[in-house]
Amino acid sequence: MEENKRRKFIKDVGVGAAAVGVAGLAGVLSSCKGEQEAPKPAAKAEAPKPKTIEWKMVTTWPPHFPMLGEGADNFAKWVDEMSGGRLKIKVYGGGELVPPLGVFDAVSQGTAEMGHGAAYYWAGKSPATQFFAAVPFGFNAQSLNAWLYSGGGMELWDEVYAKFNLKPFLAGNTGVQMGGWFNKEINTMDDLKGLKMRIPGLGGKVLAKAGGNAVLVAGGEIYTNLDRGVIDATEWVGPFHDLKMGFYKAAKYYYYPGWHEAGTGIEAMVNLDAWNKLPDDLKAIVEAAAYKCNMWMLSEFEAKNNGALQELITKHNVQLKQFPEPVLKELKKLAKEVLDEVADADPMSRKVYDSFLKFQETIFDWNKLTEEQYQQFKYL
Amino acid sequence: MEENKRRKFIKDVGVGAAAVGVAGLAGVLSSCKGEQEAPKPAAKAEAPKPKTIEWKMVTTWPPHFPMLGEGADNFAKWVDEMSGGRLKIKVYGGGELVPPLGVFDAVSQGTAEMGHGAAYYWAGKSPATQFFAAVPFGFNAQSLNAWLYSGGGMELWDEVYAKFNLKPFLAGNTGVQMGGWFNKEINTMDDLKGLKMRIPGLGGKVLAKAGGNAVLVAGGEIYTNLDRGVIDATEWVGPFHDLKMGFYKAAKYYYYPGWHEAGTGIEAMVNLDAWNKLPDDLKAIVEAAAYKCNMWMLSEFEAKNNGALQELITKHNVQLKQFPEPVLKELKKLAKEVLDEVADADPMSRKVYDSFLKFQETIFDWNKLTEEQYQQFKYL
Repeated sequence: MEENKRRKFIKDVGVGAAAVGVAGLAGVLSSCKGEQEAPKPAAKAEAPKPKTIEWKMVTTWPPHFPMLGEGADNFAKWVDEMSGGRLKIKVYGGGELVPPLGVFDAVSQGTAEMGHGAAYYWAGKSPATQFFAAVPFGFNAQSLNAWLYSGGGMELWDEVYAKFNLKPFLAGNTGVQMGGWFNKEINTMDDLKGLKMRIPGLGGKVLAKAGGNAVLVAGGEIYTNLDRGVIDATEWVGPFHDLKMGFYKAAKYYYYPGWHEAGTGIEAMVNLDAWNKLPDDLKAIVEAAAYKCNMWMLSEFEAKNNGALQELITKHNVQLKQFPEPVLKELKKLAKEVLDEVADADPMSRKVYDSFLKFQETIFDWNKLTEEQYQQFKYL
Repeated sequence: MEENKRRKFIKDVGVGAAAVGVAGLAGVLSSCKGEQEAPKPAAKAEAPKPKTIEWKMVTTWPPHFPMLGEGADNFAKWVDEMSGGRLKIKVYGGGELVPPLGVFDAVSQGTAEMGHGAAYYWAGKSPATQFFAAVPFGFNAQSLNAWLYSGGGMELWDEVYAKFNLKPFLAGNTGVQMGGWFNKEINTMDDLKGLKMRIPGLGGKVLAKAGGNAVLVAGGEIYTNLDRGVIDATEWVGPFHDLKMGFYKAAKYYYYPGWHEAGTGIEAMVNLDAWNKLPDDLKAIVEAAAYKCNMWMLSEFEAKNNGALQELITKHNVQLKQFPEPVLKELKKLAKEVLDEVADADPMSRKVYDSFLKFQETIFDWNKLTEEQYQQFKYL
């Protein structure tokens, strides 16, 4: 990316980006495409439109942010198409109507009928929310989906959000993320001591336990902070987004795997009063749009990350590094301590974590014979 | 499962089951549940229903067959809900309106507007169809989704099916399957020589290349054939379905991994004339229902297979066995030969296979840093 484009990109982030997790991502307005479809002629035998319901959707993403904000845009477009225009959802980027981290309150209070973000942003409201987005060394996308859709997880998420007058939906996934950008090699746990790294949420708590310094830096300031040595490292999402951010100019080493976010769930949420007023057909349409958004987004991440990664390596000489196994092992131990502390401090978190652990046991058994095997035999 | 239940189950298979792949599965009518939802009161402000469109959906599954037939039932239910009853789809089990393997022709000719099955059943119509369902040592579910939705695969599938007046949709996935039931151990490639195994499609061609005898046996006859030694082995789907079939009574060894089907795509198809007549909102509804069905089905398989597996092991003393790596390696080599032969014999297959291989290269690179890592670090 040329320097002026990178600067423009980062400037946009400054406008709409939240300070945590994937919400810190920057948006390139011009790169938003959504689905490639030719303009359609008017429908032939559509239902007459008796009543148009108008909703606002506030999001934690910069406007039209690739994949994540695009997911929100597509969600609204799909609902519009499916409802024959009877449910119109106007999407607002973070900061346009409410701040990115004001989404939860705004939808809870009915300022907007709908929101799009990630559940771990709302840990301050209820720590149990974090389990529905990303847990360090937690589920990948496929297992998160199975737990939520078919393993009892969704009912718990409903329970947690209902207290805030909200109904949650799973509406996207980033897949396994990268481990982050570092200015020095991470060879032992000692290398994490005193490390100033931008890493939010539970992952940040794990780093703190390791003696590191987990800091929050707003999306638009990460590059500059990294470049000037104010921070030593940052995690972000994956190559597709990291390339646009230009981190390769400010940090030498790009680490994997993203132990802190192995398949981050992206959410849609609806104000419960607005939901209850919706006719049944529109409820079914909103729910199906969330499923579609989940599937669409993960497929986009999976299909497009590697091209960006190759560009980072071949064009920008990024040094790809793997966290040493003893480091990951120790981080996992610390992650367990963090999760136990969260669960011990809050009964609802305990209930959700117990369900998570129970499902983890059965899905790991199944992974052993299936997905783990696949990841090996495909190379034979 | 008690003996009379197993017999009833297998009798049902005899009615509606196709002879190939997952279509050979048996149905237990009483076990169909679909989504667990309380009866809903009448919608509050639904669009008036100006015109009800009635479609027939023929399927390759026995009526209401768990997960697969249920997926078809749910598809119809979701479309009904989303359309406020404007598009009614009546689902027929295999054999109820047309034979299971008559689905493609029936929808192509307009006998039914819609079908639900798996694309590899139609290899006789066009060998290229097989790539959209399962390829030996091919994609798992996540990679198949990414290739089809975001990697150019869907456009090729559209092209292949358009020649038959059909529009295809991805509408389910089984996840990585099991390798099958055997009456003797498979230690070397020699153990496959002369082996009479029920294994259809490309997997069967691979076994034939290995000197085995790939046979087709209708679903309802597999158990008896296995029990009487008419066949030595059979593949099926996974523990959830295999348990119901009672194979553990007729074969001692349950092998993994399912190298021949690492993430079998389940399809919906619509007659193109019927599709073109559909108003845009109903088109969008059918498309979203397919996405939802895909996500729902895989999550069901992932969440429920392990419970059945544990029952097979602990209650029925099934011996779980892993194919030796040298055997898998040799099978992979033979699979490549089979795929090359298919592509060499048919230009459309070549075009699809080239796209498949190109996507495979990039997704494997990405897997290395992400899903492969995940499958390891979750145990640290």
